Amino acid sequence: MENSTPEQNFAQLGLTLPPAPTPAGVYKPCLIDGKHLFVSGHGPVKDDKTLIVGRIGKEMTADQGKLAARQVGLTILSSIKAQIGSLDKIKRVIKVLGMVNCESDFEKHPYVINGCSELFAKIWGDDNGVGVRSAVGMGSLPNNISVEIEALFELH
Amino acid sequence: MENSTPEQNFAQLGLTLPPAPTPAGVYKPCLIDGKHLFVSGHGPVKDDKTLIVGRIGKEMTADQGKLAARQVGLTILSSIKAQIGSLDKIKRVIKVLGMVNCESDFEKHPYVINGCSELFAKIWGDDNGVGVRSAVGMGSLPNNISVEIEALFELH
Amino acid sequence: MENSTPEQNFAQLGLTLPPAPTPAGVYKPCLIDGKHLFVSGHGPVKDDKTLIVGRIGKEMTADQGKLAARQVGLTILSSIKAQIGSLDKIKRVIKVLGMVNCESDFEKHPYVINGCSELFAKIWGDDNGVGVRSAVGMGSLPNNISVEIEALFELH
Repeated sequence: MENSTPEQNFAQLGLTLPPAPTPAGVYKPCLIDGKHLFVSGHGPVKDDKTLIVGRIGKEMTADQGKLAARQVGLTILSSIKAQIGSLDKIKRVIKVLGMVNCESDFEKHPYVINGCSELFAKIWGDDNGVGVRSAVGMGSLPNNISVEIEALFELH
Repeated sequence: MENSTPEQNFAQLGLTLPPAPTPAGVYKPCLIDGKHLFVSGHGPVKDDKTLIVGRIGKEMTADQGKLAARQVGLTILSSIKAQIGSLDKIKRVIKVLGMVNCESDFEKHPYVINGCSELFAKIWGDDNGVGVRSAVGMGSLPNNISVEIEALFELH
Repeated sequence: MENSTPEQNFAQLGLTLPPAPTPAGVYKPCLIDGKHLFVSGHGPVKDDKTLIVGRIGKEMTADQGKLAARQVGLTILSSIKAQIGSLDKIKRVIKVLGMVNCESDFEKHPYVINGCSELFAKIWGDDNGVGVRSAVGMGSLPNNISVEIEALFELH
């Protein structure tokens, strides 16, 4: 992976990017501030533009939640490409806030959010693709989406 | 709006700023770091210094929540003015984290937080007044306030 | 305190640092970005490496929650020392996000998170040790830990 680009790494995964979502409110999906790319909270958008919904520990298992988190990661990548054109312009992941829609007795938030973090690590590598993180359980999320993730990246 | 200042835009709205809240714990309402103004989580302080309280989807409707979010925005503006003197010193909104005190089946968090975001957009404009955002549902909030919002701004 | 260092201030407190935790997922405990030290969400690790668990307002009182928040603060200090060697390299606290695992009718989140904030204030002083903050109630936290806190510091 040392000699391949983030775009090449992504292509190797054989995954599809969903359409970049349009904002559901008064906000920008991404915003550049100097060397930093701020990314709004994203949900798991599927290729047909519908959302992965359901509460983990209720209608969904932790493994289904992890797949939803990966889909959030793909949705973030789609927003980034729509905004700045290429994943290669990103140097590294600085911070991820992973928010899980789950029952109050759910305990495996890190496992769920790894679905997104492992995707980023495959694209930008085990060092640059991994930042600080919090993975926590929310009372509820918009449209009952299973996972919402916001992120901060450093640009080249 | 192109040729008016944020302070002029605010005056046009005919809204009143509540008194700037004193911290309810060991924190600063605002903090300047280089070009950035960090703002602590604020609640909806009313002109008489009481708080808008209640859980959305239980005692409050989404529309009442949206008004509470606007009141949080006004409270943030009050803190900013107390800290740096003028809204004109702020160049743009970078990031908003909107936290809604609501039932687990509530789904309209973006609609609620728009109450704050639309206020900021009227003051700083549709580009500079709109940043990235997450709008999510919390398990609970201090004093049972209906909405809490933290924010990051860029200074001139 | 004016003439003592953060390390000296910490030593004065007579408190013990727990072992620095290893990440429970795909993330870094700390990350340096220019002058900023980002710290992942940390839980309350005890000296024997076990975690303080339990929901505040249910199995735990607010005072027990405040002690848990102090333990989170100590765990963050331990991670920082493991990462950069000395608390003296930190100039000030910029931001704290305090997340409380509590029942939906709990209202004293600021009181709980003060357990961490008061610790930081004793180490870096009443100005530099106090940043902006949000203190909020989550639906759930990993492993049912009582408190999780993420933070942003400025380095010298």
